[in-house]
Amino acid sequence: MKILFSFLPKLEQQTALIESFPAIQFNFQKPLDVDALKTADVLVTYGEDLQASHIETATNLKWIMVASAGLEKMPLNEIAHRGIVVTNVRGIHKIPMAESILGHILSIKKSLSVIADNQRKGEWTNRIQSSELFGSTALLIGPGAIGGEVGRILQAFGVQTIGCNRSGKISDDMNEMISFEELKDVLPKADIVISILPSTEQTKGLLTYEHFQCMKRTAIFMNFGRGDVVKEDELLRALQEECISFAVLDVFEKEPLGAGHPFWAMKNVIVSPHVSSHSSQYVVRALEIFSNNLTKWLNGNIELDNLIDVKRGY
Amino acid sequence: MKILFSFLPKLEQQTALIESFPAIQFNFQKPLDVDALKTADVLVTYGEDLQASHIETATNLKWIMVASAGLEKMPLNEIAHRGIVVTNVRGIHKIPMAESILGHILSIKKSLSVIADNQRKGEWTNRIQSSELFGSTALLIGPGAIGGEVGRILQAFGVQTIGCNRSGKISDDMNEMISFEELKDVLPKADIVISILPSTEQTKGLLTYEHFQCMKRTAIFMNFGRGDVVKEDELLRALQEECISFAVLDVFEKEPLGAGHPFWAMKNVIVSPHVSSHSSQYVVRALEIFSNNLTKWLNGNIELDNLIDVKRGY
Repeated sequence: MKILFSFLPKLEQQTALIESFPAIQFNFQKPLDVDALKTADVLVTYGEDLQASHIETATNLKWIMVASAGLEKMPLNEIAHRGIVVTNVRGIHKIPMAESILGHILSIKKSLSVIADNQRKGEWTNRIQSSELFGSTALLIGPGAIGGEVGRILQAFGVQTIGCNRSGKISDDMNEMISFEELKDVLPKADIVISILPSTEQTKGLLTYEHFQCMKRTAIFMNFGRGDVVKEDELLRALQEECISFAVLDVFEKEPLGAGHPFWAMKNVIVSPHVSSHSSQYVVRALEIFSNNLTKWLNGNIELDNLIDVKRGY
Repeated sequence: MKILFSFLPKLEQQTALIESFPAIQFNFQKPLDVDALKTADVLVTYGEDLQASHIETATNLKWIMVASAGLEKMPLNEIAHRGIVVTNVRGIHKIPMAESILGHILSIKKSLSVIADNQRKGEWTNRIQSSELFGSTALLIGPGAIGGEVGRILQAFGVQTIGCNRSGKISDDMNEMISFEELKDVLPKADIVISILPSTEQTKGLLTYEHFQCMKRTAIFMNFGRGDVVKEDELLRALQEECISFAVLDVFEKEPLGAGHPFWAMKNVIVSPHVSSHSSQYVVRALEIFSNNLTKWLNGNIELDNLIDVKRGY
């Protein structure tokens, strides 16, 4: 059995895999070795290097392990057609992302950037606008693993959490759940609105000017899912009109964000260059998920963790 | 019965008190009305305006309600001598302070100030140093109400919490407790060291250069208690020598921090001008505590909340 990587774990991580699975022929290459893929049984990839044409010639390929959460750059139709199993590392982002999201919220609530500005000026002033997270209400749109973790921690801060997904089915760490249809009714209640939605046919352009108009003028909007879920020019307009007080954006319609984009210079926007999921523990955790699944796979257990419904795309 | 305030709650808050306690003669004055104090039974004060000489002439005074946590500016000897009951608003700071402390920690861990600098320059770069709070160890020196709240939330982030106080007696929301004597043994384990100690004879100058030398070079030190607990010139030396990676200081030996002080310009110091406890909910919560205690007092119940041991000073 041949397993091809299209990225390079650290040498000791490679060795650990080889030692744990002696029967397997590992091939660590970067970038994707298209020739080696032709005979590989399993591909481990970040999910950005795979073309439809590669799937055609990868006649042995049975399982693609994507060491990432977003699958929008994958040739999903071709993969579905061939019946190739796909798993990802859903959940791997939840710790660093929840920490990033909470960091941004608290930094805004406690005016940490104003404190930093005053320090730069050598100015001691205790006239700092400071509001509390405690007792506020957060709306989490798309509460999967990440949203659940954010919700759990927000609850520890005394925040009421409302989750919103397609079904409205109850989810962990949410005090309340609503469906997409109820979004506009609930937006006026939320002090913080966080989108953690993936990019799918259903979510593209979901959040429009009308939605921002429904929000409190004091609301903080955060996009930590995918940029194209928000109609960016409509968000820009809402911010310029001060429909909401703040936007913290980790994702954008086009990344990197263009040099001349108004967001860069806006006082009520934080441009976070898609770094909220960064973690020194990333590959460690990805390989842990992979090793567990590989053990299952070798034992003939097809109930892998983080199995993707390839047709739905998540 | 006469109750004198030496600060002015909002008019509706005054009215609410008068309506709740119709038998009582309230007198709201700012600053402290020394004449009115002579006949007052109860004084409600922020605790910074009371002189020993005032106590002498306040012959009816039986209870001082301090709407603050620190009592170091109070003439405690004279108060103790007269047997006047003192209560404070211990616990009132715990929510805003825990939020401030967590905000600073996450902001450092996620390099939010670097992200802000890059935004100012219009620079998209994902080379952001980012570390995780999850899995780290925090040492909380002086875990009372505030430390307990910080500990509880840190635990929700997956942080191991070690509390340190005089007795080493077990405290809520701490995984482990140590006494002051064990401090130097435990400091090398901590990723974050937070002092929330009050200023007392026992705590003054407690933290010295030696202590900072014991810490990890990656450690973050935070002082959110009282400035004189730390020998500031020794902390300065430790920071200059990079014994630790960061200091976040909300309190200082002398406040405001002097204009020429090196802390202002240091990259590894955050100067927070004693604002971490600020909250729009402050007076609301203080009056809540006061009203509860006043009801007890009128019912002859002397077990007031937040009763101070005047001789110990906390």
